[in-house]
Amino acid sequence: MMDKRATSADEPGASDWATSLDLHVDLHHGTRSISASLTRALRDAVRGGRLAPGTRLPSSRALAADLGIARNTVADVYGELVAEGWLTARQGSGTRVARRAEPRRSVRKARAVPELRHPLATPLTYNMLPGQPTLSAFPRTAWATAMRRALAAAPSEAFGYQGPAGRIELRRELAGYLARARGVQVAPERVVVCSGFVHGLGLMARVLKAQGARRVGVESYGIAEHRAVLERAGLRPVAIPVDADGMRTEGLADSGVQAVLLTPAHQFALGGALPAERRAELVDWARRTGGLVLEDDYDGEFRYDRQPIGALQGLDPDRVVYLGTASKSLAPALRLGWMVVPERLAGEVLRAKGMEWSASSLDQLALAELISSGGYDRHIRAMRQRYRRRRDQLVAMVEERAPHVRVTGLAAGLQALLLVPPGTDAAVVERARRDGLALMPLSSVAFAPPPSPLHAVIANYAAPPDHLYPGALAALARALTTSGEAQP
Amino acid sequence: MMDKRATSADEPGASDWATSLDLHVDLHHGTRSISASLTRALRDAVRGGRLAPGTRLPSSRALAADLGIARNTVADVYGELVAEGWLTARQGSGTRVARRAEPRRSVRKARAVPELRHPLATPLTYNMLPGQPTLSAFPRTAWATAMRRALAAAPSEAFGYQGPAGRIELRRELAGYLARARGVQVAPERVVVCSGFVHGLGLMARVLKAQGARRVGVESYGIAEHRAVLERAGLRPVAIPVDADGMRTEGLADSGVQAVLLTPAHQFALGGALPAERRAELVDWARRTGGLVLEDDYDGEFRYDRQPIGALQGLDPDRVVYLGTASKSLAPALRLGWMVVPERLAGEVLRAKGMEWSASSLDQLALAELISSGGYDRHIRAMRQRYRRRRDQLVAMVEERAPHVRVTGLAAGLQALLLVPPGTDAAVVERARRDGLALMPLSSVAFAPPPSPLHAVIANYAAPPDHLYPGALAALARALTTSGEAQP
Repeated sequence: MMDKRATSADEPGASDWATSLDLHVDLHHGTRSISASLTRALRDAVRGGRLAPGTRLPSSRALAADLGIARNTVADVYGELVAEGWLTARQGSGTRVARRAEPRRSVRKARAVPELRHPLATPLTYNMLPGQPTLSAFPRTAWATAMRRALAAAPSEAFGYQGPAGRIELRRELAGYLARARGVQVAPERVVVCSGFVHGLGLMARVLKAQGARRVGVESYGIAEHRAVLERAGLRPVAIPVDADGMRTEGLADSGVQAVLLTPAHQFALGGALPAERRAELVDWARRTGGLVLEDDYDGEFRYDRQPIGALQGLDPDRVVYLGTASKSLAPALRLGWMVVPERLAGEVLRAKGMEWSASSLDQLALAELISSGGYDRHIRAMRQRYRRRRDQLVAMVEERAPHVRVTGLAAGLQALLLVPPGTDAAVVERARRDGLALMPLSSVAFAPPPSPLHAVIANYAAPPDHLYPGALAALARALTTSGEAQP
Repeated sequence: MMDKRATSADEPGASDWATSLDLHVDLHHGTRSISASLTRALRDAVRGGRLAPGTRLPSSRALAADLGIARNTVADVYGELVAEGWLTARQGSGTRVARRAEPRRSVRKARAVPELRHPLATPLTYNMLPGQPTLSAFPRTAWATAMRRALAAAPSEAFGYQGPAGRIELRRELAGYLARARGVQVAPERVVVCSGFVHGLGLMARVLKAQGARRVGVESYGIAEHRAVLERAGLRPVAIPVDADGMRTEGLADSGVQAVLLTPAHQFALGGALPAERRAELVDWARRTGGLVLEDDYDGEFRYDRQPIGALQGLDPDRVVYLGTASKSLAPALRLGWMVVPERLAGEVLRAKGMEWSASSLDQLALAELISSGGYDRHIRAMRQRYRRRRDQLVAMVEERAPHVRVTGLAAGLQALLLVPPGTDAAVVERARRDGLALMPLSSVAFAPPPSPLHAVIANYAAPPDHLYPGALAALARALTTSGEAQP
């Protein structure tokens, strides 16, 4: 068996480069002639789908040069395959694989593998599941421009293997942004770039475990996957009650936890902002006990009212780890997040991160460029205005169509909480689903709900694209009125 | 304590958007006037480094509107701070933070955190460590163009959370590329996009472990980190001897392994290509025992001679998992890799991958666009020519300057193996280091070397940028001659 790499690499002309194709050809010529072997190899490649319909083949001259055989042999083989209908030849367009009815056997042969969908990527028309910004508003042009500029300016080593902290260009820009926009006390050396919030949380969980922590306080309403991350690291999540003002910190001392994970800017999903007294209490607890606070600032950029909003981390950067993400401010698809870690933990966090699980350096440089050019601030500002309008529309709709429903958690973020009559939340979600609207009931993020749990659904007013938002609101109104009032 | 978000969001003009800044201001006005509070808040922000020198502040009108205070108050405060030297005001440039000698206390305060460097990113002038392509040759313009086109064409859902398999656009393009260029038997449904080879290997290790595997055969020369990945999943790496033709498959049956990891196209680091008989023997073993073969095709794109080069996977796609990477063909910084998995394992691999550790969808779409436009093939072709020239220069240098050294592993890839006189390898590496050249001795990738181990150094002729390659070769020549011949 002979096996040759066929290329047109030896062709010098620019026009050949433009249509060059890296083609792997098996020439089995035991008893067969070279011509017959090549014919068979190409036919098999087309039949098996390895050469897709429309694919342009190398010129006969190039293929011949590369296989070390006569040009006429290749030309004859091409002619034969054109005659058989496997290839087509047209003036000026070269020799291409014919578009036939039934090639790609290997593709058809493959049984469908179950496509695992992300739980927040619903197939329904209207998506009001939490956690996603308006995807259609991603700043495509700004990102493309930032990427182009970043690529032009990047030093060569930026394309190589990287250390675990992330590109210094991005860490500098994030430090500046987080200080001025979120009140974070930060130096670039303390910023660790990671691939989204969950990656950062996983790193912190491993560091906590290595330092002897066993129990981590989490909000009694919160995302199950975050608790699972703690558990995978060998830590036990312990529920700390939350109310309309966020985590109830007074019970922390008796909870026996060594660390706390919470969402102070906009409690997920009740929606409160942690008041100054509780912030102080939290930091006091951490100082007194040597505990660590993990601040999940998932949507702190989006604050609509004039209320306290600075990052908790600003109160004590030695006791609070700040975790932020581009998933709400730009897009989840970027898989970019960041942490600001206390000095004493920075080395350990970097060792836990290691060399392999990193975000693309090029994306990091593009984000640095976007922040530095002011484009990131502009985008957040524009989105804040957009989300504020949407929030107001949601509130107006509920007031007009479903006055029995109370809307809370409105001061910030991408989602509101709709408190519905007791026992009706599941019916609202189901009614909405039948209308093509995906909603999440509060109960599905309840870790340890109080004896009399809240009956509510979460409504992400940011998620639908503009043209679908009126439809989403209409479907929500129907769900709230027909299901919410039906029950006693 | 009052805490206000100050923005110029309410300003309509485009010129304001261009300079908008998301500024977080604390107004502590207990007994103090608003004016005094704002003065102090801004001064603290500058002093603490939260507002970096040169930062442009919102206009007094915008800040006043946002804080809900009189414009004159803000103007007075700005004037005061300009007078104190904290800010500067210039016609047409607005109010900015002054460039002072000693702000950024928080930055200076931070003790230097040890920057963990990737082991392949040497600080030396000449880098011939394995694993990296010519970083300076990254196709910046082509990537920027591909990204721009991909962004323009992407559906909105591409910016959201994604399922674990990766973007279908990329899986389709990879399936086409791998079939025609590497002879892989593949349908898009079988492609799993991952974040580099090690990510894919880690997933396969977890799947193998879950299926009851305990021992995995690895090449007796190979990368230690890959063995560590297997160990972290609870598997035991078992050395299978390699020679100049790659893994010696005849001993596999007696090794008691349930899977094998190997580099058939270009054994790392001896450099051999696995011959047809061994390939057949490997697949026979897998069929007979139900074993699984993990094919690490790290540099199979770069083949310089007319020899068999098709992927092993083509022999039996149900028994071989193909693992490829963009780290050698484009850049390690992208953190993009791919696997082609047997149908029966696809579901399990996707479940192991889960939702969190994914490459950026935008990068995936850009790579799909690059392949589909022909740019990926063009880049690989151009690099193959470049690397072939470099390889020839290396061979010529050794022949001329160090004829006592034998060069092997030349048929493919980015690195060659230089066999030096027994006992001189460490001296060659050390002598090179003193000349600013980073080399890796073969001994550092030896897992279970034979009783009489090879004495060699690995020379990555692809890694140095063009302008440094002559210097790297000269340093290598000195190291080989002065150290290699000094020993008996």
